[in-house]
Amino acid sequence: MTVVDVGPVAAPPAGATLAERYAAVRAQTEALCAPLETEDYVVSTMTDVSPTKWHLAHTSWFFETFVLAPNDDAYVSPNPRYAFLFNSYYVQAGERHCRAKRGIVTRPTVAEVFAYRAHVDAAMHRLLAEVGDDASHPAYGVIELGLHHEQQHQELLVTDIKHVFWMNPLRPAYLPRVPERAAAAPLRWASFDEGVHHVGFAGPGFSFDNETPAHRVLVGAFRLASRCVTNGEWLAFVDDGGYRKPELWLSNGWATVQERRWEAPLYWERTPDGWTEFTLAGTAPLALAEPACHVSYYEADAFARWAGHRLPTEAEWEVAAERVPVDGRFVDARRFHPGPAPSVPNDVGLAQLYGDVWQWTGSAYVAYPGFRPSPGAIGEYNGKFMCDQWVLRGASCATPRSHARRTYRNFFPSDARWQFTGVRLAGEP
Amino acid sequence: MTVVDVGPVAAPPAGATLAERYAAVRAQTEALCAPLETEDYVVSTMTDVSPTKWHLAHTSWFFETFVLAPNDDAYVSPNPRYAFLFNSYYVQAGERHCRAKRGIVTRPTVAEVFAYRAHVDAAMHRLLAEVGDDASHPAYGVIELGLHHEQQHQELLVTDIKHVFWMNPLRPAYLPRVPERAAAAPLRWASFDEGVHHVGFAGPGFSFDNETPAHRVLVGAFRLASRCVTNGEWLAFVDDGGYRKPELWLSNGWATVQERRWEAPLYWERTPDGWTEFTLAGTAPLALAEPACHVSYYEADAFARWAGHRLPTEAEWEVAAERVPVDGRFVDARRFHPGPAPSVPNDVGLAQLYGDVWQWTGSAYVAYPGFRPSPGAIGEYNGKFMCDQWVLRGASCATPRSHARRTYRNFFPSDARWQFTGVRLAGEP
Amino acid sequence: MTVVDVGPVAAPPAGATLAERYAAVRAQTEALCAPLETEDYVVSTMTDVSPTKWHLAHTSWFFETFVLAPNDDAYVSPNPRYAFLFNSYYVQAGERHCRAKRGIVTRPTVAEVFAYRAHVDAAMHRLLAEVGDDASHPAYGVIELGLHHEQQHQELLVTDIKHVFWMNPLRPAYLPRVPERAAAAPLRWASFDEGVHHVGFAGPGFSFDNETPAHRVLVGAFRLASRCVTNGEWLAFVDDGGYRKPELWLSNGWATVQERRWEAPLYWERTPDGWTEFTLAGTAPLALAEPACHVSYYEADAFARWAGHRLPTEAEWEVAAERVPVDGRFVDARRFHPGPAPSVPNDVGLAQLYGDVWQWTGSAYVAYPGFRPSPGAIGEYNGKFMCDQWVLRGASCATPRSHARRTYRNFFPSDARWQFTGVRLAGEP
Amino acid sequence: MTVVDVGPVAAPPAGATLAERYAAVRAQTEALCAPLETEDYVVSTMTDVSPTKWHLAHTSWFFETFVLAPNDDAYVSPNPRYAFLFNSYYVQAGERHCRAKRGIVTRPTVAEVFAYRAHVDAAMHRLLAEVGDDASHPAYGVIELGLHHEQQHQELLVTDIKHVFWMNPLRPAYLPRVPERAAAAPLRWASFDEGVHHVGFAGPGFSFDNETPAHRVLVGAFRLASRCVTNGEWLAFVDDGGYRKPELWLSNGWATVQERRWEAPLYWERTPDGWTEFTLAGTAPLALAEPACHVSYYEADAFARWAGHRLPTEAEWEVAAERVPVDGRFVDARRFHPGPAPSVPNDVGLAQLYGDVWQWTGSAYVAYPGFRPSPGAIGEYNGKFMCDQWVLRGASCATPRSHARRTYRNFFPSDARWQFTGVRLAGEP
Repeated sequence: MTVVDVGPVAAPPAGATLAERYAAVRAQTEALCAPLETEDYVVSTMTDVSPTKWHLAHTSWFFETFVLAPNDDAYVSPNPRYAFLFNSYYVQAGERHCRAKRGIVTRPTVAEVFAYRAHVDAAMHRLLAEVGDDASHPAYGVIELGLHHEQQHQELLVTDIKHVFWMNPLRPAYLPRVPERAAAAPLRWASFDEGVHHVGFAGPGFSFDNETPAHRVLVGAFRLASRCVTNGEWLAFVDDGGYRKPELWLSNGWATVQERRWEAPLYWERTPDGWTEFTLAGTAPLALAEPACHVSYYEADAFARWAGHRLPTEAEWEVAAERVPVDGRFVDARRFHPGPAPSVPNDVGLAQLYGDVWQWTGSAYVAYPGFRPSPGAIGEYNGKFMCDQWVLRGASCATPRSHARRTYRNFFPSDARWQFTGVRLAGEP
Repeated sequence: MTVVDVGPVAAPPAGATLAERYAAVRAQTEALCAPLETEDYVVSTMTDVSPTKWHLAHTSWFFETFVLAPNDDAYVSPNPRYAFLFNSYYVQAGERHCRAKRGIVTRPTVAEVFAYRAHVDAAMHRLLAEVGDDASHPAYGVIELGLHHEQQHQELLVTDIKHVFWMNPLRPAYLPRVPERAAAAPLRWASFDEGVHHVGFAGPGFSFDNETPAHRVLVGAFRLASRCVTNGEWLAFVDDGGYRKPELWLSNGWATVQERRWEAPLYWERTPDGWTEFTLAGTAPLALAEPACHVSYYEADAFARWAGHRLPTEAEWEVAAERVPVDGRFVDARRFHPGPAPSVPNDVGLAQLYGDVWQWTGSAYVAYPGFRPSPGAIGEYNGKFMCDQWVLRGASCATPRSHARRTYRNFFPSDARWQFTGVRLAGEP
Repeated sequence: MTVVDVGPVAAPPAGATLAERYAAVRAQTEALCAPLETEDYVVSTMTDVSPTKWHLAHTSWFFETFVLAPNDDAYVSPNPRYAFLFNSYYVQAGERHCRAKRGIVTRPTVAEVFAYRAHVDAAMHRLLAEVGDDASHPAYGVIELGLHHEQQHQELLVTDIKHVFWMNPLRPAYLPRVPERAAAAPLRWASFDEGVHHVGFAGPGFSFDNETPAHRVLVGAFRLASRCVTNGEWLAFVDDGGYRKPELWLSNGWATVQERRWEAPLYWERTPDGWTEFTLAGTAPLALAEPACHVSYYEADAFARWAGHRLPTEAEWEVAAERVPVDGRFVDARRFHPGPAPSVPNDVGLAQLYGDVWQWTGSAYVAYPGFRPSPGAIGEYNGKFMCDQWVLRGASCATPRSHARRTYRNFFPSDARWQFTGVRLAGEP
Repeated sequence: MTVVDVGPVAAPPAGATLAERYAAVRAQTEALCAPLETEDYVVSTMTDVSPTKWHLAHTSWFFETFVLAPNDDAYVSPNPRYAFLFNSYYVQAGERHCRAKRGIVTRPTVAEVFAYRAHVDAAMHRLLAEVGDDASHPAYGVIELGLHHEQQHQELLVTDIKHVFWMNPLRPAYLPRVPERAAAAPLRWASFDEGVHHVGFAGPGFSFDNETPAHRVLVGAFRLASRCVTNGEWLAFVDDGGYRKPELWLSNGWATVQERRWEAPLYWERTPDGWTEFTLAGTAPLALAEPACHVSYYEADAFARWAGHRLPTEAEWEVAAERVPVDGRFVDARRFHPGPAPSVPNDVGLAQLYGDVWQWTGSAYVAYPGFRPSPGAIGEYNGKFMCDQWVLRGASCATPRSHARRTYRNFFPSDARWQFTGVRLAGEP
């Protein structure tokens, strides 16, 4: 795992206006593109991966469709076909281009996509001047949703470009190297008693609908690892034949291991000189003290079984994180932390909750009791994916810092590995 | 949905010995084959469906491998290749024949498979004479597991042969017709207050490992429908365009509906004379008062959304079923109920909990807190499937009555329809 | 390769009437089933392979559809759905059951299929009494076509059951063993000068439409091997790394070798005790003097290139065979030849032209100049397959002797191996 | 079909030196890229289609590998990984990048690829100065092959970019519009008597190996259409239900029509205002007098059957073209013909033999008698594709004029439609 350092983009100041936050988020997206050549924006290396150009356009389409169209009668799209090309999956927002074909569309060009962004931004700033910071304005909530949506795509953009560079035999680098951790903190266990807790988001501020409603949960006694599993620990699992022992794996997981010939996390390569890891800074020797990353749920679950532990539930994670501040090596925090982030335990004793890797939980991604998606196409945001996915908690080094949240429910299917995903162990006290 | 009536097989008497129970369960499996021709035993119509011949042999292999091999030094298998052919998925029990090829193996013949059963039975009865009813005997627990395992395959055998007959353009019948319900009971709602409950099996008697350990769960207030959704109610969903409205469906569900061109439950057919349903007694006009059956989780979830309700969680179902006796139209109870089973509400007001259709819950199939699978190959029974499946509760008309249990956790993936699966609605009070 | 010995079925006597020939061919089909168990009739092990039961019924459907329906007003099919189930590919004869699903249809049972045959035979014999040997009767030609069609299915039946038994881990045997050749005759070359020849069938007697019209072809000088390539010679190719050298293979052939991991002909297996070959008599040590069999066009072509020769064109083969009588180890000749057939060269010096293996030619299967298929559904017999296939000449040990003919054009795609197919080499003089 | 007009690239003058021809061909390739944006060079829309960037690099790799490496000790590749990335299918020239992944490789950039071309050109011109026009120089023949190879990729480049633009919902244009034919010449038939002819290339000058050796063929009497089938004639086939009548199609062709839902040639679209055709100049109303283009062999064969004719054999085509000069609307001839090419019959009465569309023949692509591929990796050029393809004769509007030749054997599989392929009818006199 390498740390993303995209340079001098200022985070929006505390107490920023909605217009300032809009400007900062949109600028951050474009700053992430600085290291790219025109060709890099165009392709998709697998169905999960979208072209950079598509991310840039889709996030603009979101504002166009859900903010400008209902609130600005004078707004005209630069090209009515963009609505077809850049709708991701909002069935109620009209016909869409097939996801599998995103990577073969060469026009609009990158320059045209940036012009599209500027066109949307100009209209948005006119509207933002009218909305101000009036949270009761009908556009306010959707604009805020659009900003968080764009931050999600910032992470995807980085995640996807890493895969694009990996699939290229020339293995280009997105970033210069930054120093890695010299040694991991010793693994400690924080213990928690049984209790009834509130789980889920109860405001104030922004959350996605899937974090609500907050509700009471009886959480049994448990303990949680003070930090994430390291590359060094994962290497021990590999060396012990972890990928060759069916008894460690879920049935589907074992089938996947065999079919795809997995022998290690994505981006690891065995060379005559030892294991390497492909990072955003190119191929590097495996950094043993860094958290293991780019592992699927199947691998996370098998590793935990091998280690004699288990994955935490999402309720356990959320309860444990209660007094831990959001801190870590976020994508937009890099300029403050030229070296690796300190893995200093907080008062609960837990490090690396945010900003290193997303942490797989043993909780399937289903609705909270009483969950109600938003009405209309916006309601397709989260609820319709509540099937065959697992919840991940925390945030990764590719997540924007202002996007991380204790109640955040990220979710991916069991075999997904191209995200910055890792493991924090749990168990009974 | 048709009722299975396999005739005069006596259930083991109350207080039966282990040997008597063994004899009764094994005889029941063979009784289920009475309506079949030799050819019917051989084929598989899709990967989920195993040949009848395979069910007959696999259940015998189970006793051979897990009971006779470790407990009877003198036991010799009639053919050492049977261990390869009839192991289903127990990786630790050795190499296996590929599941997808089960339906192309013509030898051993049906007669040879019955001889294999007799060979195993003879050895088992010698062993059973030694074990008696001594639950501390090392073989006792595994024999009991083997009987429940065989009962699961009894249900699968019936479920699979229904699919085999359906895929045949001649549409043979497995059973003679039995009368259907003339009218469904009115739908009522039973309400339950918030409370902390024990969920899971805490003995005495038999349970599968996945029902344990019993643990405390905070269940919020909820209400539960007094009976299952009927064919008539499902028809209203179909007629309202339920299969054509993406907003009702999970994202994967909608993709499945379009790809497989689903327009109604499996086994329904639209004809010039109205809807028909293929049943174990052949094709019949759709019986409106019978419970809707052969629906996937995707359909169950979409139907509930359309109806303005939701599926129950498995904890809710188990809490609600607390004072309801196990009764219904089970496969081996048919001789006691020549007509349809009464849908008479019990003191909790709930009917059709058992013996009509398995009921999809909104709970993903994951481990209970503190779950530990059995050691060795037997431990592959349940735990390794805890991924991308949903829990179903209750029991169907194809389930043996003595196999149904309040804490039973059946599980299938989101798109499975060939099982006897239906819907009971839930909601907030 | 093993020799088929199906016992005491008499070939129709020379000068037999049409009715006698009908009776003999139909009896021969049923005689081929003698070694089978009921279960063996039901399954299909790959798309190319049809169930025995299907062959029995389809050949009867052919007479029903193309002979009885237009010529016998009183004829009634025992089941009108049989026309759907047993039409192979005659689009103009109505809707058909999907080929890929032939192996999952358990009803009609085997007994019912034999009853269907008897039903058709009874009606056919009534009609045959009326037709006599009047070749001008409108039914005469189609009956003769139906007999040759049934003979093709006799070969397919044997070919297919061999694959069914091969795919069964128990490897059953269809036949008792017969002695194999002790040694192959030495390979000699017969030379032929350039000349213009008539190629194709010009009567009298029966031919398929694709053998017509006879036409003149300029055939350059060539030479042809006196016998087929042996297992021993093929083993040298295997041992020389023939399956691992891309320069020997067509591009598609090399892709196929790698994708399917071919290392030898179908039915060969490398064991600790040397190579074995699965035959109709079960698994046996590789018989080095027998002709190599069950090789695809890709393999035939690569072998020829490796050997420094080439495959013959179909015109070369036909010209060379001009004065060679039809003789060999045919399926229905076995009782006359209890030992292997003599490989005695005839006056042209060529042996094994018929009755051992079909011989791949380097001629693509396209229409002869002026080819006209028969009108109506019967015209779908041959012409619509003139694409992406190669012509094979001769006849195999599974071909009925009365079905072999010098102008016969058999055809299969480049990757087909389950037929009794081998290689005769050719080259420039 | 639209005409390619790529502007002011001078053809090499008659009597040009090898160095002049090299310079002209290389410049022509780059001139074809003039209308493209950087993004357009990167993608592949299906396996058959290569990125423009890949064509530019692969043709340079050909010179690097087969000319510079064996003849210029001092030559150093700019990047040793290019040999991996830009080898197409020459197994003997080393490992290759997977064809299916060509369209996801963003680096080297377009600018880097042009630099690669310049690097190769510089070394080539040093070598060409040494070679001069000495045909006995060991490099001479391979350089000439490399130029013809590059011309093949010029046609592919145009063909592929048309597909890339077609797959883009915005439907960009590659070229400005040029006028289309107002009316087709009337269809006449040229008749030819039976005779023995030499077929194949016998020099002097360049040919591919698959055109040799010239050999004698007996060609029966035949007649050939004076021009190609027009869009207007094809429309009559469509309107007559040609794509819905199985009796017109080869068996594989009918399966393809149904599976891919073909209703007309590739690039045709049915709109409320009538049929349109996507051309290199964008979408236009169907031009009825232009030759039908972008049809597969399956469609060509079905059309001919529907029309009561057949496709010519390749020998017939070559015999008929004997006294017809190479003329037509070639890609590099456009500046001489600002309007459509005249369809003026020559002295044999045949028009449109070259420069409009490739013409499917009914001849499978197999070796000529006595064919010997070149030794080494260069020998993989043609021979290894002699399987499951059909010969096409003539040349298309996307072919460079100096690349067309009477004996040229182009070849594609039965379902290929993205090439500029059409139909000329033939029949008996």
